[in-house]
Amino acid sequence: MSSARESPDKATANNPLKHPNSRIAVLTSHFTATMSSEKDAALAAAAAPPPADSPTIFDKIINKEIPAKVVYEDDKVLAFRDIAPQAPTHILLIPKIKDGLTGLSQAEERHCEILGQLLYAAKLVAKQEGLEDGFRVVINDGPDGSQSVYHLHLHLLGGRQMNWPPG
Amino acid sequence: MSSARESPDKATANNPLKHPNSRIAVLTSHFTATMSSEKDAALAAAAAPPPADSPTIFDKIINKEIPAKVVYEDDKVLAFRDIAPQAPTHILLIPKIKDGLTGLSQAEERHCEILGQLLYAAKLVAKQEGLEDGFRVVINDGPDGSQSVYHLHLHLLGGRQMNWPPG
Repeated sequence: MSSARESPDKATANNPLKHPNSRIAVLTSHFTATMSSEKDAALAAAAAPPPADSPTIFDKIINKEIPAKVVYEDDKVLAFRDIAPQAPTHILLIPKIKDGLTGLSQAEERHCEILGQLLYAAKLVAKQEGLEDGFRVVINDGPDGSQSVYHLHLHLLGGRQMNWPPG
Repeated sequence: MSSARESPDKATANNPLKHPNSRIAVLTSHFTATMSSEKDAALAAAAAPPPADSPTIFDKIINKEIPAKVVYEDDKVLAFRDIAPQAPTHILLIPKIKDGLTGLSQAEERHCEILGQLLYAAKLVAKQEGLEDGFRVVINDGPDGSQSVYHLHLHLLGGRQMNWPPG
């Protein structure tokens, strides 16, 4: 994305989607980069995988550099609404410290604690969201899994009948 | 399912699917009860939910009363192939001791350890299965999540492109 100091030219000034300073531009960038089509984004990510511990858009959400609808936070876990929801309730849960967890496939034994905390937080958020009729938790890993952001995240989906197979 | 001591009548003797002693009957029962249509099974389960800690088919797999293709086992976790696979690799991972975990929605803080171990075991099994191009982990909870067996289980799917949305 363009630097915020850059002067917008006429085209970007007339098009909020291209205006580098607008919140819409920020959200659109977020949308395009991570959520518009999880599968397309995953394939793009696979074509040019980032270095293992390079920052992702989730770091900017954790640091409050870009907005997110946070629904739960504790000292280890942050949960916020997916900007391209696939169900009436669609929330992402992430570890606030990545610690090498670009994806579940990178988990080491030391990560068992945070992995358990993430799943337990998913249960707490499901309850908080009133999903007493059920929900689905999904973790995508790598291109075959349609992972789009290389910072481990759990999808929590509910509020409708989830179908089978799961994608 | 009929008792194994029962004498098969002519119809069951001529139809391996109805023969109470045959391995096919056992597998068919397993299939019908849990896997043929996760969604249908979930709706049936929801219509008559079992008591919280009643035994499920997974107890019989843990106790080796019915066969399963076990791919991983440690002191806490058992992993075996789903009998109605939705991907070239489709494995279920379960805690060997349920401890009230009929589903993720029943998790208490004390379950964080086993929840972490289950996710870490999913990573180990994915590696063992050669899923270096990626995979998906799915946890269904309740009727909306299409949960069919009320003993917490993780689905590990890989070996094909997983799509979006996840069911």
